[in-house]
Amino acid sequence: MPHRRSDVLAHAVDLLDTHGLAALTMRRLGAELEVQPSAIYHHFASKQALLAAVADEILARGARPRTASEWPDQLREICVELREAMLACTDGADVVATVWAFGLGAAAPVADLEKVLTDADAPDELVAVASRTLVHYVFGHAFEEQTARQAVRLGAVDRSLDSLPDFGLGLDLVIDGLRLRLGS
Amino acid sequence: MPHRRSDVLAHAVDLLDTHGLAALTMRRLGAELEVQPSAIYHHFASKQALLAAVADEILARGARPRTASEWPDQLREICVELREAMLACTDGADVVATVWAFGLGAAAPVADLEKVLTDADAPDELVAVASRTLVHYVFGHAFEEQTARQAVRLGAVDRSLDSLPDFGLGLDLVIDGLRLRLGS
Repeated sequence: MPHRRSDVLAHAVDLLDTHGLAALTMRRLGAELEVQPSAIYHHFASKQALLAAVADEILARGARPRTASEWPDQLREICVELREAMLACTDGADVVATVWAFGLGAAAPVADLEKVLTDADAPDELVAVASRTLVHYVFGHAFEEQTARQAVRLGAVDRSLDSLPDFGLGLDLVIDGLRLRLGS
Repeated sequence: MPHRRSDVLAHAVDLLDTHGLAALTMRRLGAELEVQPSAIYHHFASKQALLAAVADEILARGARPRTASEWPDQLREICVELREAMLACTDGADVVATVWAFGLGAAAPVADLEKVLTDADAPDELVAVASRTLVHYVFGHAFEEQTARQAVRLGAVDRSLDSLPDFGLGLDLVIDGLRLRLGS
């Protein structure tokens, strides 16, 4: 029986979450679904296209109601949501950051940050730079946190995890830089 | 003839730079040096230990004279040096960020940032948070830039690279956040 695209995608996310990014191949996905790799390529033209869909699914699953009314809180809300969505799936930070770097997906967080800053009357260049700076910070922090926690859990390394809860403090530092620019 | 540790390390960096992180295995390194993998393990107890040495070698090769006298310029100098060192080697950002997350190496940039901030009389918590925030930003930006440039060069994706030169602008935004905290 042929699989629907949404079934293949859900299985790909499960495979990633259970076995990590190295295990997420078209071949293994086909084997687990008991179809030829060509059946996977029918839905996803390439490994990159599959990764892009997986990244967007990770973000979609992490979507939360947004309630903040002031721009600094709105930026925080988007960044916290992005971080939590990535941390909720094994190697999620690596996948989402890679797909975004490829320009193939995971574009929503930056677009949402840009909208908040545009609505706050930030000049165009600052809108672009600040949105990218915020996601670079979120990706950098989430990649460290996920890599460290996964490696410690596997017993591969033995490092302290005490510094990891500083995500919000670093985020506030970047937002303070924006406050200075926006004069608010 | 047995290889010295420094020779094995230099070959590992070459292998990484030429073929990327996926190719950097103990087995392949042994094959290229025409020794058993056990000869590699004689110098590096594990793949993680090898990666840590490679990351520190990438940073050592990127070391530049530091000339800045004011703390914001000193922070910039360290971050620019870190970025350029990582970008100079294929998958350098991935390797350095991973090793740092493992807590196994690549510790010098954070230590250097902490020293600058301590000397600038920043309170202890701010020293720790700001140093980590700066490297998270540098890692996030460098990972995007390197992933994008490598994928475009390989013809794997077709995205604009126009936004990538904003590294310094984003860095200034984070440093402005610090200025606000330090009142200077």
